[in-house]
Amino acid sequence: MEAHLPSLVRPPTERPERVNEAVCYALTSPGKRLRPVLTLAVAEMLGEPFPAVLDLACAVELVHSCSLVLDDLPAMDDARLRRGRATTHRVFGEDVALLAAMGLLNRAYAVVAEAAQKLPLKRYTPEDLVHHLAAAIGTSGLIGGQALDLESRDEDLDLERLEYIHSHKTGALFIVAGELGAMAVDARRRDLDVVTRYAKNLGLAFQISDDLLDVLSTPEETGKDSHQDTHKVTFVKLLGVAGARQLAGELLDFAVASLDPLGRKADPLRELARYVKDRGR
Amino acid sequence: MEAHLPSLVRPPTERPERVNEAVCYALTSPGKRLRPVLTLAVAEMLGEPFPAVLDLACAVELVHSCSLVLDDLPAMDDARLRRGRATTHRVFGEDVALLAAMGLLNRAYAVVAEAAQKLPLKRYTPEDLVHHLAAAIGTSGLIGGQALDLESRDEDLDLERLEYIHSHKTGALFIVAGELGAMAVDARRRDLDVVTRYAKNLGLAFQISDDLLDVLSTPEETGKDSHQDTHKVTFVKLLGVAGARQLAGELLDFAVASLDPLGRKADPLRELARYVKDRGR
Repeated sequence: MEAHLPSLVRPPTERPERVNEAVCYALTSPGKRLRPVLTLAVAEMLGEPFPAVLDLACAVELVHSCSLVLDDLPAMDDARLRRGRATTHRVFGEDVALLAAMGLLNRAYAVVAEAAQKLPLKRYTPEDLVHHLAAAIGTSGLIGGQALDLESRDEDLDLERLEYIHSHKTGALFIVAGELGAMAVDARRRDLDVVTRYAKNLGLAFQISDDLLDVLSTPEETGKDSHQDTHKVTFVKLLGVAGARQLAGELLDFAVASLDPLGRKADPLRELARYVKDRGR
Repeated sequence: MEAHLPSLVRPPTERPERVNEAVCYALTSPGKRLRPVLTLAVAEMLGEPFPAVLDLACAVELVHSCSLVLDDLPAMDDARLRRGRATTHRVFGEDVALLAAMGLLNRAYAVVAEAAQKLPLKRYTPEDLVHHLAAAIGTSGLIGGQALDLESRDEDLDLERLEYIHSHKTGALFIVAGELGAMAVDARRRDLDVVTRYAKNLGLAFQISDDLLDVLSTPEETGKDSHQDTHKVTFVKLLGVAGARQLAGELLDFAVASLDPLGRKADPLRELARYVKDRGR
């Protein structure tokens, strides 16, 4: 994946050089690649891992990178550090970062359209994949969660609203990452449903582990500004460290339990859940 | 089209309310709708105007609205007025405007994927349409032109570079607007080529007419800040008013001449060219 990601975008030697460089910078920064790993793991679990599945997985990372560049902008979280490096707008300027973010999102769609065309699908059409991605990103998904998050600063959030925000802001992309992996190998609807339930709980638990890390770690450990959330309501603020840890644990138990119908072949997804659990410790 | 555009996005009564409101505000502001009109005119000229063609045309306007919201941001042109109204970020704040722009781009892809699936295509696949749109928007298209435009401030531009910028920044979306109209009705490749050539010259001439209006008109007449281009190199600066007008005229003559193989049925496109010619007077 690390080798494949930069091959999907234009090199910084081509016009427009600065924007292409910023796209590469954001995309190849050392992330955990949890979302695209989920795509690959699901596809390998349910079918044949065609080369185009790697493209789909990388498209999810393109979208994720876009959302990080935008989240970090001065008008949003105004972050200085991301994945252990200066944020994209601090290196390239806001204007270039904006165009890079747009370029990342746009390229994700091109990659999904190309990849979907190569897959031998019977249960789904290539446009189903495009449409699924768009729904996950849109105002009912990622963008919707981010919007509500911005609106909710300084407000007294309750757990319902916080879950709404994060099941959209973080959860939607986890869900579509898993679903694209399932759809790519023409998975049966009931297997797709299992993946959806698993990914939804995994995503929310991951967000809680992020909230925990924000209060418990240093920037050296997380690679991003810590205490970035002091002005926001988080799971840790609502539930305390122990309560947040417990909720994450319960969500991960749900995630793992939903894998039962798939038996032993779902072990890689059980391992991913363990990784998220360890992260919030 | 005016009735159909708002039906493609979420109403401001739904969560996230502010972003949905900003999306509607940007999308339904009184524009000329030249790009989507081009899509419709081409489709009607070359085939049967299926309802899904209107969706494709509106998707082009979604992309155009996105680019206007981004162009107007403080980090870009820092514009106050657009289509006779305050720019989106001045009404809703930069953070909401950013999310609205991403929402518009994202929704464009959902609309194209849905519409393409409804069209009875033989020569093109639905993903061809998605892919075509992505190429027009990407760093080799709209984003590329905008990036080079930003880089070129205060620089001594020559005509070649200026043509590069505008054939990407403005031309690419004109071209894909025409091409989507042709592809939507399963047009033959040679007819598609005619449309490409026509739209390319029309788009560049339109940009020159914009440059002319920027120096010759008041904000009341254009609905946007004038003399916004004083810090940029424009066709008018390079060629003078008379020279720019002459170049626009020549490009429009090329555009109209390329329609010859299509005979009288291309008259609506000839009329569009006349409209652009009159605009730069």
